[in-house]
Amino acid sequence: MPRSKKTRSEKVGLPPGSLIPVGEGLSGRSKIKLIHYDEQSLQELDIQQISGCATFIKKTGVTWISFEGIPEASVLEELGLNFGLHPLTLEDILNTDQRPKMEDYGDYLYVVLKMFYNDPTGAGKIKSEQISILFGANFVISFQEQESDTFQAIRERIRNAKGRLRKSGPDYLTHALVDAIVDHYFLILEDMGERIELLEEALVQTPTAGLLSALQGLKKELILLRKSLWPLREMINSLERSESPLISKSSVLYFRDIYDHTIHIIDTLETFRDMLSGMLDIYLSSISNRMNEVMKVLTVIATLFMPLTFIAGIYGMNFKYMPELEWRWGYAMVWAILFTIAGGMLFYFRRKKWW
Amino acid sequence: MPRSKKTRSEKVGLPPGSLIPVGEGLSGRSKIKLIHYDEQSLQELDIQQISGCATFIKKTGVTWISFEGIPEASVLEELGLNFGLHPLTLEDILNTDQRPKMEDYGDYLYVVLKMFYNDPTGAGKIKSEQISILFGANFVISFQEQESDTFQAIRERIRNAKGRLRKSGPDYLTHALVDAIVDHYFLILEDMGERIELLEEALVQTPTAGLLSALQGLKKELILLRKSLWPLREMINSLERSESPLISKSSVLYFRDIYDHTIHIIDTLETFRDMLSGMLDIYLSSISNRMNEVMKVLTVIATLFMPLTFIAGIYGMNFKYMPELEWRWGYAMVWAILFTIAGGMLFYFRRKKWW
Amino acid sequence: MPRSKKTRSEKVGLPPGSLIPVGEGLSGRSKIKLIHYDEQSLQELDIQQISGCATFIKKTGVTWISFEGIPEASVLEELGLNFGLHPLTLEDILNTDQRPKMEDYGDYLYVVLKMFYNDPTGAGKIKSEQISILFGANFVISFQEQESDTFQAIRERIRNAKGRLRKSGPDYLTHALVDAIVDHYFLILEDMGERIELLEEALVQTPTAGLLSALQGLKKELILLRKSLWPLREMINSLERSESPLISKSSVLYFRDIYDHTIHIIDTLETFRDMLSGMLDIYLSSISNRMNEVMKVLTVIATLFMPLTFIAGIYGMNFKYMPELEWRWGYAMVWAILFTIAGGMLFYFRRKKWW
Amino acid sequence: MPRSKKTRSEKVGLPPGSLIPVGEGLSGRSKIKLIHYDEQSLQELDIQQISGCATFIKKTGVTWISFEGIPEASVLEELGLNFGLHPLTLEDILNTDQRPKMEDYGDYLYVVLKMFYNDPTGAGKIKSEQISILFGANFVISFQEQESDTFQAIRERIRNAKGRLRKSGPDYLTHALVDAIVDHYFLILEDMGERIELLEEALVQTPTAGLLSALQGLKKELILLRKSLWPLREMINSLERSESPLISKSSVLYFRDIYDHTIHIIDTLETFRDMLSGMLDIYLSSISNRMNEVMKVLTVIATLFMPLTFIAGIYGMNFKYMPELEWRWGYAMVWAILFTIAGGMLFYFRRKKWW
Amino acid sequence: MPRSKKTRSEKVGLPPGSLIPVGEGLSGRSKIKLIHYDEQSLQELDIQQISGCATFIKKTGVTWISFEGIPEASVLEELGLNFGLHPLTLEDILNTDQRPKMEDYGDYLYVVLKMFYNDPTGAGKIKSEQISILFGANFVISFQEQESDTFQAIRERIRNAKGRLRKSGPDYLTHALVDAIVDHYFLILEDMGERIELLEEALVQTPTAGLLSALQGLKKELILLRKSLWPLREMINSLERSESPLISKSSVLYFRDIYDHTIHIIDTLETFRDMLSGMLDIYLSSISNRMNEVMKVLTVIATLFMPLTFIAGIYGMNFKYMPELEWRWGYAMVWAILFTIAGGMLFYFRRKKWW
Repeated sequence: MPRSKKTRSEKVGLPPGSLIPVGEGLSGRSKIKLIHYDEQSLQELDIQQISGCATFIKKTGVTWISFEGIPEASVLEELGLNFGLHPLTLEDILNTDQRPKMEDYGDYLYVVLKMFYNDPTGAGKIKSEQISILFGANFVISFQEQESDTFQAIRERIRNAKGRLRKSGPDYLTHALVDAIVDHYFLILEDMGERIELLEEALVQTPTAGLLSALQGLKKELILLRKSLWPLREMINSLERSESPLISKSSVLYFRDIYDHTIHIIDTLETFRDMLSGMLDIYLSSISNRMNEVMKVLTVIATLFMPLTFIAGIYGMNFKYMPELEWRWGYAMVWAILFTIAGGMLFYFRRKKWW
Repeated sequence: MPRSKKTRSEKVGLPPGSLIPVGEGLSGRSKIKLIHYDEQSLQELDIQQISGCATFIKKTGVTWISFEGIPEASVLEELGLNFGLHPLTLEDILNTDQRPKMEDYGDYLYVVLKMFYNDPTGAGKIKSEQISILFGANFVISFQEQESDTFQAIRERIRNAKGRLRKSGPDYLTHALVDAIVDHYFLILEDMGERIELLEEALVQTPTAGLLSALQGLKKELILLRKSLWPLREMINSLERSESPLISKSSVLYFRDIYDHTIHIIDTLETFRDMLSGMLDIYLSSISNRMNEVMKVLTVIATLFMPLTFIAGIYGMNFKYMPELEWRWGYAMVWAILFTIAGGMLFYFRRKKWW
Repeated sequence: MPRSKKTRSEKVGLPPGSLIPVGEGLSGRSKIKLIHYDEQSLQELDIQQISGCATFIKKTGVTWISFEGIPEASVLEELGLNFGLHPLTLEDILNTDQRPKMEDYGDYLYVVLKMFYNDPTGAGKIKSEQISILFGANFVISFQEQESDTFQAIRERIRNAKGRLRKSGPDYLTHALVDAIVDHYFLILEDMGERIELLEEALVQTPTAGLLSALQGLKKELILLRKSLWPLREMINSLERSESPLISKSSVLYFRDIYDHTIHIIDTLETFRDMLSGMLDIYLSSISNRMNEVMKVLTVIATLFMPLTFIAGIYGMNFKYMPELEWRWGYAMVWAILFTIAGGMLFYFRRKKWW
Repeated sequence: MPRSKKTRSEKVGLPPGSLIPVGEGLSGRSKIKLIHYDEQSLQELDIQQISGCATFIKKTGVTWISFEGIPEASVLEELGLNFGLHPLTLEDILNTDQRPKMEDYGDYLYVVLKMFYNDPTGAGKIKSEQISILFGANFVISFQEQESDTFQAIRERIRNAKGRLRKSGPDYLTHALVDAIVDHYFLILEDMGERIELLEEALVQTPTAGLLSALQGLKKELILLRKSLWPLREMINSLERSESPLISKSSVLYFRDIYDHTIHIIDTLETFRDMLSGMLDIYLSSISNRMNEVMKVLTVIATLFMPLTFIAGIYGMNFKYMPELEWRWGYAMVWAILFTIAGGMLFYFRRKKWW
Repeated sequence: MPRSKKTRSEKVGLPPGSLIPVGEGLSGRSKIKLIHYDEQSLQELDIQQISGCATFIKKTGVTWISFEGIPEASVLEELGLNFGLHPLTLEDILNTDQRPKMEDYGDYLYVVLKMFYNDPTGAGKIKSEQISILFGANFVISFQEQESDTFQAIRERIRNAKGRLRKSGPDYLTHALVDAIVDHYFLILEDMGERIELLEEALVQTPTAGLLSALQGLKKELILLRKSLWPLREMINSLERSESPLISKSSVLYFRDIYDHTIHIIDTLETFRDMLSGMLDIYLSSISNRMNEVMKVLTVIATLFMPLTFIAGIYGMNFKYMPELEWRWGYAMVWAILFTIAGGMLFYFRRKKWW
């Protein structure tokens, strides 16, 4: 469980709608990019002041404002005033510790979801970033936690005058953004699948305590992913079934497509879960097996040598009157007895399949 | 499970609506505070006699009567007569051993939930307090088990003439009270999350029986929290979906916000649960691992020394005719044999990776 | 699972509505008490012949006929003719091995549920008794398996002319009867809760096989209770939601109150279940822990003394030419070696934290 | 899982409605009995040729044709033509490997369920037989896999001119047939309950591997029963709720009665399941307990005798200069040391409660 | 989990509807067969160019175009233009890594499911192939991953002028195709059932680590099948309940028949799952049992010989004054003591039932 730098508990006692950032990686500074397009024209701007967007609010066509880095509360408030956003929406944007959800505020829809990517440092850990998307009749506003090139491909598709994006409204652009994020999950899952297979092979060969903790680590990542994916599915489902006029009929088909993807992802996650719990069974029973093997060696050795040592002990006694000690073939006889006992024991163990 | 001083069983055989207190910490005495406010005016009173409230019943604006400490049955009855409360409501207020619920009595809604806080004595235990809230067209009545400053921040917000509270009705005040309580859950969860992480680290290092019982203790606290949180979620959901005219449309958005919080809290609880059960697996398999290690040491030692001791025993026998004993290099030869056997054993164990 | 004296299998092949008693404790004889009341008047009778009830059937007010002990088939048939009861109802009354349910026969509602009480012999076992209640527009008929004082308090409340019961109809009397039974569950649960806590304390101190079977005994009692409680909840819910004209609006509130109680009871049962399964985990891992401890003692002792005994064995050999035996300080040297080895071993175990 | 003689795989590639028998025990020959009755008259026939039934098709009253043994495909086809049966119905009748279901074909309802009986050879195994029942406006057709007396009691009830059956239609006859089958389940369950109790007692006394496989055998039978019972419940529920005009209102009450029975049966099965899984826990922990006990004996013995043997070994060394050997009381002193050590060990073990 | 040659991750960043093949076994080349039929006529063609189909689009009767091998993107695009297919449909056809689903595009329905067959190389592995079926008012288009004779039997049934297929529309042909695929599942299940039984017998006789991994292998195949079968059931259910005019009323009955089959298959799968998890329990407890047995042998041997060896050691001591050594019957007395001890031990173990 990632530990937030700023936790929710700091907001205890404050009224709802208080713009206090919650979560980590909140730079306070953000880059703002604006694209305005319709079928014929395209305009791209780097915005410094939120007031720069104001002129686009009443324009036809689609205006996409993307924040890379969560903006400061004051910036957000100004944005809220310009676009008529509800205080609760603004509060949610600042809180990067949310579960995926879709909320219909009438004039606009608010969508929150998580972007997952493998830690570039290669430690095999999954990192997550919260992405908020708002879309109304003629605008889309997206918020990322950090500067990234996640949406770069979509910008390219917008620049291409012949793409479907240029002919469609904010709902289709939103679809494209969500689709780009959900597609990324497949990367995560494929990577995870490979790690699970490697772990399984290692476990079958030599079960060590290290592998167990690797197993637990994978389990935790799965829990993290599931926590985000089940509500994601629900969220996309409610987008698809939403009767909001902001979503056109043809876009519904595309959201259904994403919905299929999320179900596919969840199916895979559940399969991973079953595999991991099967691996724990393998691990535990293979420990038991090894213990069994160790115990058999011990038992065979002890059962073999204890009687022999006892007999040797007998003839090591110092009694004055021990007739066997005087016999000519006494020593040879003892060896004969020892071999007979050892042979019998070994035959018995062999029959019991102990080795 | 907290053991009540007064248990439900004492009410067996009594008709419903009997005002017998159930639960612990029932002082019988309570402090009553009254705040009356509307957008322009504000009035605060400390009430001694319930009849003091009577004049406020027909006033416009919002009247908030808060009881700190469950009042005596007679006080409650008088209150019930003044505000037209159903006997079952009064009975429920006195019973501090309830699960969170919302009941619509037509003229007013009755809401029960639990406030959790960490034991201030620092024993790491969670304590709970039941809070009942009634709200009608122009009043809110809240009941706490003890004097506390839980709602202090809300009183401050009311005193601030410009806050949203002053402009809104009893539904929004109720929202503020519930929100304050739900926000407190985040504190509990963060504290619990930290204790789980500490425990996990300790478990991985050295699994002891003490840690196991700490694990069980955490599990019990989780069970306690879940028992309260699942019905809480349901309760807030039915508030949000309630079609009571007592809840305005704009307040519904705010209740939905709390609903999101409770889902977030429940998600976190379930994650904790998964983590705890994963930790039990770690604990059990680490015990098995250690046993395995111990057994290997035993087996190596026994397998090494039993044959050696046997050979020494052989040449400790007192047979008259044992040719080896007379040999010049007999003793050296025995050492050679011993070293050969020991070396073979060690080589065998090394190949089996037993150490 | 209680073994019935008369089992259902004896009815195989008979048509439905056959009045064959099923279950144990069927005396065949029953005491019949009749109370007729309305707001003004009250009449109490001990009935010998069922025909004695006939005059009350058309009277206004409420007639409550209570059978203590399941009556004979012939008595039941006569009752059925008088009150217009369906043959399936009569069959169900005789079968004391049913799950709680509510059935709407139009003219009357039929309610079956279980009364639980602790075995008075103190063996800590839970006993159950089936209670059937029929109520129509102006009558309530209740059937208990044995004479008991379960409903004594309700009779007292009826005798009290000012109680709510005297002013209400058969639905409220039915509520009172069901409430009395459900209240009894709290006694059972409190007793069970105490036994679970005692068991837990005992388990943590010394896990013995006896405690395990006590644990299993508690589990079985829980299973028994759950088997009865889940359908009880469903039954009361369908009473509350029933649209039968036999249940007045104000009574619905009271049935909702019982519904809350059953949910509370079920919650507690589920908590008990979680606690019991946690206790099994404690038990199992504490056995493993003890085994670990035992193994360590064995290993330490064996690892310590085997090498020492081996060395002693070496110098017990009878070779003619063993130079050490002749040395002046040979014996002292051996002791030195022995102490060195023992010390090394102990140091090694200490570092491994084996004791 | 019973292995079919004729498996479904033999039908792969054939069009639906192909009359290929699937399942075991298909004699190909069947006995056909016909009963025609109404309130006044009764007629019983043994039919050789299916054409013999044709005259009854248009008669009023109820015609019940019962097949004991699945008939040949050609016979079935002729029956289908006469009674207007859908090819899929005919195919289903021949396939004796189905899950219980109810299908409404408009003119008739088709019901499939399983009859269970204990293996008469006494091996304690449960055998099953599929029974198909078709009923329309004036006919009932039933199919059993073998000749049996399952429905003999029902024939007797029909012959009794005063029974309810003679006054009712095909729906009530169907109810009677289904009821007879469901009643049989109670026999199976009681038998199973007894075997579970016997097994439990045996397990508590001495856990052996044989009992474990008996436990697994019971589990498998439970799985088999559950596989049949859950759909049975669903099937009877859909009969009860069916809005087919073929089921009269008064019959619905009787089907509800069977529905109650199936829920009762399923409850009992689930209780059995919980008991069996509890017994596995007992078994496993009792094995652990025994191992613990064995290990303690081993450890006590080894810890006691290893030091003693070591000391004896010391004084068996042959050093020339060992002062103790010459002492007058050396030997007595050694015994004193031995007793001291042994006593100390025993005291230590006693304090650790190892025996 | 089969590893795809082309994974979904290669499509990250592309717009939806991009025709990039995903999955393995994509030849890029495919054989196209066309059958056009109505009740009177039949026409079969091998198509080289998709334009060859164009003339059939407006014809009455049924046109079935089957692709064996996924076609190239360009071919698919042309097909899409001719038959008015949505880009998302085309994308789904190319992606052979989908979960079974049914999608209603208005003019046509799109159905995806998995065909399973046992690996012909005999390794006992299950292989799967994705099959897409599109059907509209007068056409059916099917896509298989490879050339196969799966649908050969259906072609034969079409050629037979009297079969039901020739009289029915595209919905019935689709039913026939789906039925052929679902029937194949029974082959897989029967094969799996036999492997489970063999494994169970082997496990009961000698639990080895190899069997455990065979068990895990079966579990994985089950997971794979379940992942495909649950959505299959859902898919066929939505076909049955679909209100599309493309599915005639009489076909609904046939789809319901397939639905029954899928439920039967899923039931069997779940039974297999329960059996496999029961087998793991057997395996684990049989390991424990064996360890117990081994430990008993070790304990008996050690407990028997340790005291004996100790006594022999005592009389091997070299004290000058050891009276017993001089006794005439000392040696015999020692043997007497040894036999007494050994006998006592054996008697004790026998009473404890250790052998």
